[in-house]
Amino acid sequence: MIPNLTLRDIREAHERIRPFIRRTPVMTSSSLDELAGARLYFKCENFQRTGAFKARGAHNAVFSLTGEEAARGVVTHSSGNHGAAVALAARSRGIPAFVVMPTTAAEVKKSAVARYGGRVTLCEPTQESRESTARRIAAETGAHFVHPYNDLSVIAGQGTSALELLEEAPELDVIVCPVGGGGQLSGVAVAAKALRPGIRVVGAEPAAADDAQRSLRAGRLISGGNPQTIADGLRSSLGELSFALIQAHVDDIVTAGEDAIVRAMRLVWEIMKIVIEPSAAVPVAALLDRAPPAAGRRVGVILSGGNVDMDRLPWLAGQPPAPG
Amino acid sequence: MIPNLTLRDIREAHERIRPFIRRTPVMTSSSLDELAGARLYFKCENFQRTGAFKARGAHNAVFSLTGEEAARGVVTHSSGNHGAAVALAARSRGIPAFVVMPTTAAEVKKSAVARYGGRVTLCEPTQESRESTARRIAAETGAHFVHPYNDLSVIAGQGTSALELLEEAPELDVIVCPVGGGGQLSGVAVAAKALRPGIRVVGAEPAAADDAQRSLRAGRLISGGNPQTIADGLRSSLGELSFALIQAHVDDIVTAGEDAIVRAMRLVWEIMKIVIEPSAAVPVAALLDRAPPAAGRRVGVILSGGNVDMDRLPWLAGQPPAPG
Repeated sequence: MIPNLTLRDIREAHERIRPFIRRTPVMTSSSLDELAGARLYFKCENFQRTGAFKARGAHNAVFSLTGEEAARGVVTHSSGNHGAAVALAARSRGIPAFVVMPTTAAEVKKSAVARYGGRVTLCEPTQESRESTARRIAAETGAHFVHPYNDLSVIAGQGTSALELLEEAPELDVIVCPVGGGGQLSGVAVAAKALRPGIRVVGAEPAAADDAQRSLRAGRLISGGNPQTIADGLRSSLGELSFALIQAHVDDIVTAGEDAIVRAMRLVWEIMKIVIEPSAAVPVAALLDRAPPAAGRRVGVILSGGNVDMDRLPWLAGQPPAPG
Repeated sequence: MIPNLTLRDIREAHERIRPFIRRTPVMTSSSLDELAGARLYFKCENFQRTGAFKARGAHNAVFSLTGEEAARGVVTHSSGNHGAAVALAARSRGIPAFVVMPTTAAEVKKSAVARYGGRVTLCEPTQESRESTARRIAAETGAHFVHPYNDLSVIAGQGTSALELLEEAPELDVIVCPVGGGGQLSGVAVAAKALRPGIRVVGAEPAAADDAQRSLRAGRLISGGNPQTIADGLRSSLGELSFALIQAHVDDIVTAGEDAIVRAMRLVWEIMKIVIEPSAAVPVAALLDRAPPAAGRRVGVILSGGNVDMDRLPWLAGQPPAPG
């Protein structure tokens, strides 16, 4: 059964979150167009608040709660951008946020959560420990759990970037969007297909974390285990809701290799002069490799985030930072 | 005597170059506002064609030539952004560009000039060799010489960024602009003071290359010699024309130390998710150090360029790039 998520839900989400999020720009680059053989429209969610699209879904989830549901705050687990987004959304609503993070999470991510007023609880770096710790905190505090992607209000929020993109570039033939847990891809697909039925919506994921492609082709949810990829935002496996929506609305899922992801990331920095994280480079890498057939087409590309540890750039891998 | 450059010249320059340059966005950042204690409006010339404001002056100079003057092309000397800008402007006009570059110029800069169709001639890395080589090429080819900054048509072109900035942020109290040869600062000052007489215009330069500050204070042109600074775009000394305009129209010149420049550059990358070069970080560094009194003011900041060698980021100094 296809989960009940419609364009109307996404429009309502957009109205709900508009005061708290940024309307990010759509950028173009003739140099990248030449390299890709297509006309690219980059939706710059790297400029979104908290540095990633996650602010959209988190705000919609937090502001969709009733006063009673919200009263004791929200709790989530995250190794990165979703935690910061929930912390900011909770602050926007004036309620506490409890964020469970694995001990292995990057310092920069932990301090981002803290900067937005989130209360960090560390846990073991396993899915089981994340979930059980979040459950325990929910039980102790009465906080409402906000899943990073397997939640229709989160998915509706993530879909709002497609509304803005198609307002500014209504003639798109294709949208290519990163896929990890699938919240963004499924929301974008619902919005884009409703606004423009002929459009193709394509997910892009690391070849090293290709559970979405395998799931779509097998017609059943295949877990990705614990994939090793530079695209740290795309290591999650699809959820049941996101998978069902992707099956219904997404045309294809393509992959990109690790070297191609790093090359694409660096090219975007050099040519467009913007900072994107590895996950955001995945659709660019796929387009430069001609993975989705896009020759001569108008292609929307979701640049999903820009949170990067400047001491550990992947093309300088193995180089420790300078002392001091 | 003050060189005869007026708002009208800069408006005419804007009309002339408009088809060939990009109207760059003005960005804001509440996080950087907090750090600086002021409201900052960033004019993003890092997104300008060729990756730097130099495209403005070069296009105005090249398109101000008569058909006869332009017929045999243009010649300039440059170790960086001006060379690429003249090459692009010449290509826009359909004439050849000869660019004299020191053997020490970065590979990435040489290939940028070549990418825009410029013909590169290498010379010794001295001012004398640059000038004599350019003179020789001018004599041999009949190409017209375009100085990087000591030229009123170049200065008028550089001033056009201030027209756009003050259209989008008309209420600015202060503009802070990097100063090297002074072409950009003098053009910006002429435009800004004419449009908004009460505005303060402040130059910002590396403490290690403070010839403009010393010249302004001494009331006479002091050459900077061959300064060592990470801000490679600001190593030039003022020209006679730019100095006279700066004396007439600029309120103050402030400086920033090398470490502060690197810190400011990294902060802009991390917080704003945009790539700026060290020269563009100099005004940001000065503002974070409270060098120009700007507390509570609305401050325009010219982010002059974004051309950076991604293998040699200054906060990773001493780290060679990864092999392969």
